[in-house]
Amino acid sequence: MSEVIATYLVHDAKGDLAKKAEGIALGLTVGSWTDLPLLEQEQLKAHKGQVLEVSQLENCEKTNSFLGKNVTRGKIKIAYPSLNYSHDIPAILTTGFGKLSLDGEVKLIDLEFSDSLKSAFPGPAFGIKGIREKLNVYDRPLLMSIFKGVIGRDLDYLKEQLKQQVLGGVDLVKDDEILFENPLTPFEDRIIAGKEVLKQVYVETGHKALYAVNLSGKTYDLKDKAKRASELGADALLFNVFAYGLDVLQSLAEDPEITVPIMAHPAVSGASTASSLYGFSSSLLLGKLLRIAGADFSLFPSPYGSVALNREDALGIAENCLVEDKFKQVFPVPSAGIHPGLVPLLIKDFGVDSVINAGGGVHGHPNGAIGGGRAFRAAIDATLSGISLKQAAENSNDLKIAIDLWGSTEVNK
Amino acid sequence: MSEVIATYLVHDAKGDLAKKAEGIALGLTVGSWTDLPLLEQEQLKAHKGQVLEVSQLENCEKTNSFLGKNVTRGKIKIAYPSLNYSHDIPAILTTGFGKLSLDGEVKLIDLEFSDSLKSAFPGPAFGIKGIREKLNVYDRPLLMSIFKGVIGRDLDYLKEQLKQQVLGGVDLVKDDEILFENPLTPFEDRIIAGKEVLKQVYVETGHKALYAVNLSGKTYDLKDKAKRASELGADALLFNVFAYGLDVLQSLAEDPEITVPIMAHPAVSGASTASSLYGFSSSLLLGKLLRIAGADFSLFPSPYGSVALNREDALGIAENCLVEDKFKQVFPVPSAGIHPGLVPLLIKDFGVDSVINAGGGVHGHPNGAIGGGRAFRAAIDATLSGISLKQAAENSNDLKIAIDLWGSTEVNK
Repeated sequence: MSEVIATYLVHDAKGDLAKKAEGIALGLTVGSWTDLPLLEQEQLKAHKGQVLEVSQLENCEKTNSFLGKNVTRGKIKIAYPSLNYSHDIPAILTTGFGKLSLDGEVKLIDLEFSDSLKSAFPGPAFGIKGIREKLNVYDRPLLMSIFKGVIGRDLDYLKEQLKQQVLGGVDLVKDDEILFENPLTPFEDRIIAGKEVLKQVYVETGHKALYAVNLSGKTYDLKDKAKRASELGADALLFNVFAYGLDVLQSLAEDPEITVPIMAHPAVSGASTASSLYGFSSSLLLGKLLRIAGADFSLFPSPYGSVALNREDALGIAENCLVEDKFKQVFPVPSAGIHPGLVPLLIKDFGVDSVINAGGGVHGHPNGAIGGGRAFRAAIDATLSGISLKQAAENSNDLKIAIDLWGSTEVNK
Repeated sequence: MSEVIATYLVHDAKGDLAKKAEGIALGLTVGSWTDLPLLEQEQLKAHKGQVLEVSQLENCEKTNSFLGKNVTRGKIKIAYPSLNYSHDIPAILTTGFGKLSLDGEVKLIDLEFSDSLKSAFPGPAFGIKGIREKLNVYDRPLLMSIFKGVIGRDLDYLKEQLKQQVLGGVDLVKDDEILFENPLTPFEDRIIAGKEVLKQVYVETGHKALYAVNLSGKTYDLKDKAKRASELGADALLFNVFAYGLDVLQSLAEDPEITVPIMAHPAVSGASTASSLYGFSSSLLLGKLLRIAGADFSLFPSPYGSVALNREDALGIAENCLVEDKFKQVFPVPSAGIHPGLVPLLIKDFGVDSVINAGGGVHGHPNGAIGGGRAFRAAIDATLSGISLKQAAENSNDLKIAIDLWGSTEVNK
């Protein structure tokens, strides 16, 4: 049957989870059931939401609203027939979590799309394989760094910053997500200048890198801007998808005239993932839904930095980016708080098919962004060769300096 | 100065709110400050975020993540110069609450737009005044009801339900927000059939009503669909804005070829408003931002029903819909759990410039939707005339039945 199955984590003061589940399944589909004449039940049967599972969980979390109350914590699974909604993300979210999102302590932790429903969605146009082909790098995590402090700066400043990052061996450089259309460094000029710098570095060193330019502005201008970026030969688009909408990402990803990979930034997503009681699970929003909608990269807070996601959530996102599916794989990009000393841990947690992404860990290196890039690349090579960072630091002064400054975490195999 | 001022509610375990505020103001603008050469400080001054207020609040809420910890609760205000971002909602949200939304217990409770920044936004195209002119009703709250149980039903079923609702004196009828494009009751057919029914009722009774049809589908098809709806003479569009994006609403509202009012449904918004620690305040998201983006109506959970918002939040939304501003006023529509006996309380809390919106309170009336509508209209008339519902029920059997069934709350003036 064509359907989407929603899994909810609920905290319920009344304690009757089966009744609650049935209320949701009817309320979000046919409205009522037992009081309908048999003939109407027959007519509406194919539209009725089906409760598939109701299970009580142990360890009810004690939260503010529940202190001193006896609350039942449980998991509820409901199937919503795809007959009921058009096959687009807004309709699916409204059906499965529309008014329900406002109805007490309910968190949407998963959506399972049936195969026929999946066929309405594009998934990534490039995916991990396509990105690796662009870079001709197949056997290690990619290394990414981020422009820093670029607001109010001119194009020369950005070009120099880009060059320094790439010269250190970084594979990808992304715009700062808070850099929007501005007179000093307009979108198209950034693409053209970026290409120039990357080409120059390639000619001089043989190192190839990609630059992700921030696609921003009004929703209905984005397609034309993205097409223009494609024409100008942009490498990738950074996109603040959660400031727009998942369906906008999908429309960009499935447009045949937009021929560049899309890097989804998690800006604003914390508003609907951070609570343990409400909103979406990170693995659903930043993993599964980004993949279905067509992101080629998913950035999310790593479990290690000060802006941190808990480890289970971060691994859950990566799992949904990578798990076997009809859609291409998305590069998981655990971000924030990353320095070279964390590379063994990053590779252990996120594997070879991930992007190691650093801001301060590249720019803050005492030898500058070049030194930062080199230190990361040395750490990646060492880890993949089974050599400890301390040992590798004997042959890489940049890595030694990084470890002395930020420390390192060795990992037992 | 042109800027947006963000107010955050923060819970911080480190306790140094001033340092936290400065970190946010720099991190979301120029990146760093004190280590910049003076010349660069001079260059970047106009781009720097400014901390305007840091105040510690009493009563730190004890929440799950904080149990047993000493946490400082405070309010922080930061001004972000409008030089830094394009003047659209995605850029403003990404600047003021992009990565910050992922950075611990931070809730965005307000955004204040400077006058020059406001000029980039349309506000409602019709607003309360424009809607009242369409209905020729100026001196009372409007009455709205909702289609119920329409999934899997045909056009005749919808027409009959619409007729019954309107015959009871309802001013507005809205589609169920979970009714999407479907073969039984396609969008355009609903508009045409709805007009036919409303015209017939008007000819027979002189009562005028508006029908809000659910605008749904892929983002990049919405404008054409909304224009087509305008051409067909649709009365209003229902729109699940939070399943799409606020900027999509804005583009619909400011398009001169889309000539119908827009009713914003709160579906999915609870994902980012329900937590007391994270996300957006309801008054910002469902009040101020919907108004700036151009909603003519804002639906939100009333403080009275089972799907309830707390009273302060619901009143905060209405306040932002109505407060003196350069934008037209938005009709606040407190919804869910509304029955005729609550009318005195609704009018006391939300005033005459509001919409009284009921589903079960209209359809569940023992005399059917006609009886439900009549009972509400009698309750509204009584309240505005200073007559108690019990007294009014002596002259309205429908009101008497409603009160006997659902109770009533009289209000002391």
